[in-house]
Amino acid sequence: MTDYIESLQRLAEQFGRLQGVGRKTAMRMAFSVIDLEEDEARAFAEAIIEAKTRIHPCPICGNLTDEDICYICDDDTRDRGVICVVEDVKAVMSIEKVREYCGLYHVLGGVISPVNGITPDKIRFDSLVERVKAEGIKEVIIATNPTPDGEVTAMYISRALKPLGVKVTRLAYGIPVGADLEYADEVTLGRALEGRRDV
Amino acid sequence: MTDYIESLQRLAEQFGRLQGVGRKTAMRMAFSVIDLEEDEARAFAEAIIEAKTRIHPCPICGNLTDEDICYICDDDTRDRGVICVVEDVKAVMSIEKVREYCGLYHVLGGVISPVNGITPDKIRFDSLVERVKAEGIKEVIIATNPTPDGEVTAMYISRALKPLGVKVTRLAYGIPVGADLEYADEVTLGRALEGRRDV
Repeated sequence: MTDYIESLQRLAEQFGRLQGVGRKTAMRMAFSVIDLEEDEARAFAEAIIEAKTRIHPCPICGNLTDEDICYICDDDTRDRGVICVVEDVKAVMSIEKVREYCGLYHVLGGVISPVNGITPDKIRFDSLVERVKAEGIKEVIIATNPTPDGEVTAMYISRALKPLGVKVTRLAYGIPVGADLEYADEVTLGRALEGRRDV
Repeated sequence: MTDYIESLQRLAEQFGRLQGVGRKTAMRMAFSVIDLEEDEARAFAEAIIEAKTRIHPCPICGNLTDEDICYICDDDTRDRGVICVVEDVKAVMSIEKVREYCGLYHVLGGVISPVNGITPDKIRFDSLVERVKAEGIKEVIIATNPTPDGEVTAMYISRALKPLGVKVTRLAYGIPVGADLEYADEVTLGRALEGRRDV
C-alpha cells in the first residue's frame, strides 16, 4: 500500500536514515507524524532545520554547541587546568550527568584504529597537544571507551603527553569492559572518575 | 549538557512525541540528525510537512491517501462487491501485503469499547452501513483485531448488517489470538483470509 502513498513512503525513508531505525519502526514513526496536529508537524520540521543549521562543534573542545563556543569552555567557574578526553559528544553528556567533574573536555571525534585506517591525524589529537602546551594544563583524564581501540588511543595519547610534563590519568575500571560510555549509569561513572589512576 | 544546547533539546523533544520513542532513543535520533548533511536534513523536514499537509483519509473508505480518493477505491479492477472492515490503516497495509484480497476496504478508525466510552457513533460505523446499502455489497469481511474489543465490534457490525441481506464473514482464526494484525506474517494472514467463516 505504502508504495502508493508516495509522501508517506518518502517520510518513512527519511526516518529510516536515522541510526538504529529499521523499516517497520520508520513506518510507525511516519504514521505518528500523520497523527500529529499540523502545527506540531511544522514545529517538528523547524526543529530539524534549526538544530542542523545552528549546531556545530565548539572550536576549542569539539563539543556540540549552538553558540560561538560551547557552554563548558565558556564557563569561568570550571577548573581550566584539567581536560577530560572523550571519543564523542555523547560521552560528554554522560560525564556531565554525574555532576562530579568540573574541568574542561576535549572531544576526539573518534579513536585511533589502525585496522579501519583511522590514524591520529584523523581525530582531534593535534589540537589536544596544542591545548596542553598552550593552556597550562595540569592533568589530562583519558576517558575513551574501554574497548581495544579506546585503549590503544589512551596509550597513544598518554605517551605523547607525558613528555610535556602533564599528569595523565585514565578512568578507573569501574566501567564494564567492552561497553559504551553512553549506557553507563551515573554511579558507575562516578566511581570511575573518583578512582582514576596514572597511566 | 543537553539542557544547554537548546536546539538539540528541542529536536529530541519532537522525536519524543512519536509513538514508542523514549527519552534516550529521542536523543540518539537528534544526534543522528546532526550527523546528516544539511540538504538531507532539509529533505527530512520537507518530507514531514509534505506528508502532514498532503495525506488525509479517503472520503469513501477512510484509508489514508494523498489523492482525492485512495488508490484502492480508485482501482476499477478490484471487486466492488466485497468490503473488508478493519480497525486502522495499518491493517489495510498488512492485508494488501498478502496480495490475495482484491476487494475494497472500510477503515473504522477504532473499535467499539464501552469501557473506554467508544460507542458505535465514534467510529466510522454509520458510513459502513450506508455503503452496504448504497453500493450493492455482496460480502463484508470483518477483519478487526482478535482482541475482546475487536470481537465485540465484529459482533455488533454483523448483527447490524445481516438484516440488510449481505453475507458477513470474519477472518479465520489463523491469526494468533490477542495479537495485532500489524505484526502477523503474510502466510498466517493469507490462511486467515482463505478460511474466513460466517458469523
